[in-house]
Amino acid sequence: MRQLHHFPLSPFCRRVRLILGEKRLTFDSHPERPWEPRDELFPLDPAKQLPVLIEAGGGAKLSDAQAICEYLEELHPDPPLLPKRAGDRAEVRRLCAWFDRFFFGEIGSVVVREKYLKRFRQVPSPEPDLAALRRALDATRRHLAFIEKLVDARDCLAGPLSLADFTAAAHVSCVDYFGDVPWDAFPKARDWYARLKSRPSFRPILADSVPGLTPPPHYANLDF
Amino acid sequence: MRQLHHFPLSPFCRRVRLILGEKRLTFDSHPERPWEPRDELFPLDPAKQLPVLIEAGGGAKLSDAQAICEYLEELHPDPPLLPKRAGDRAEVRRLCAWFDRFFFGEIGSVVVREKYLKRFRQVPSPEPDLAALRRALDATRRHLAFIEKLVDARDCLAGPLSLADFTAAAHVSCVDYFGDVPWDAFPKARDWYARLKSRPSFRPILADSVPGLTPPPHYANLDF
Repeated sequence: MRQLHHFPLSPFCRRVRLILGEKRLTFDSHPERPWEPRDELFPLDPAKQLPVLIEAGGGAKLSDAQAICEYLEELHPDPPLLPKRAGDRAEVRRLCAWFDRFFFGEIGSVVVREKYLKRFRQVPSPEPDLAALRRALDATRRHLAFIEKLVDARDCLAGPLSLADFTAAAHVSCVDYFGDVPWDAFPKARDWYARLKSRPSFRPILADSVPGLTPPPHYANLDF
Repeated sequence: MRQLHHFPLSPFCRRVRLILGEKRLTFDSHPERPWEPRDELFPLDPAKQLPVLIEAGGGAKLSDAQAICEYLEELHPDPPLLPKRAGDRAEVRRLCAWFDRFFFGEIGSVVVREKYLKRFRQVPSPEPDLAALRRALDATRRHLAFIEKLVDARDCLAGPLSLADFTAAAHVSCVDYFGDVPWDAFPKARDWYARLKSRPSFRPILADSVPGLTPPPHYANLDF
């Protein structure tokens, strides 16, 4: 059985869990604490990043969410999560990178650090930085407006349902776990996210429960 | 003719220039000022990132360096810059993402901001932050040690020459333009970079000249 080492509040790990689910690939789930990395998982990664996917029987040991998703798409192309035309594939990849860099940089990394890591690791300071959280909330509004612009012009973010949607939804879901998504102001983004949430691959994500931190009632509600 | 809009000191733009060169694909070069973005280049990119590649005849308009490189690899597979096996391709992609995130985040973005953008844009302050530059120099040593560890275990960064090498070399070259790479302490990394530098695709990079900012003599020297 393949093994997935992951952190439940990491959008990068959630993306891989979603893609494994979409492709109906079973795996043993190993939740990890990223602040206590186990060196043997990261022989050639000085940054010791999760997720790490280890193929069955001592096979390939893979890291980096996008690299893992491309790998899964190449070996298990059904159902396809990248379109056929090279230009369309480039647009999906552009959007994955966009959410990884900007949504995570401006929102996800801030919320998880300020509301979770500081509380449980108590470094560098246990007090959340309220100004940073306000900036992240402002950024959330900008990003939801961007999602609305994309789904207005297309069916899903890059056209048909693709890796771009699961990437973005994984990022959104981590922030939603903290109740920090202003859904009421963005009904089209909510409709898009509701479609993603209702897929079987999303069930394990909605069942995530981080010790000491209960998500808001709407988090796992498909009709939020 | 395809059009490439790029910023000469951006490692993301340099990577695409290198890959176009490796694949012997001609293009019209349009240097841009990222601090004065032309909106028409970025209809669906709120971050207005370079490079932007526009195919001939009003074809695809592509952005994000990795997405563009994957696109070029799919349409122009010769010479190949991704290996054949899915697991090996995943390792190349992991390393591309690694340098994009960590080398650029810890070093390249800092050096260009402190030594170039502050001087020419004069915002937010024209004084370079010396402590930030010292941290970037420390990080450079760690990253060169990582490159040495990889080329010690393999021929190039991910095995045979691949997109990972051009990605890393593009990042290194931007920092080298400022003379901020401590080559003497890292002879194996220097050998690896010398191999990259001597390729014809690197010539336009070594000929880059940013107004007001002369690179050190070793920058364009193949025998540095």
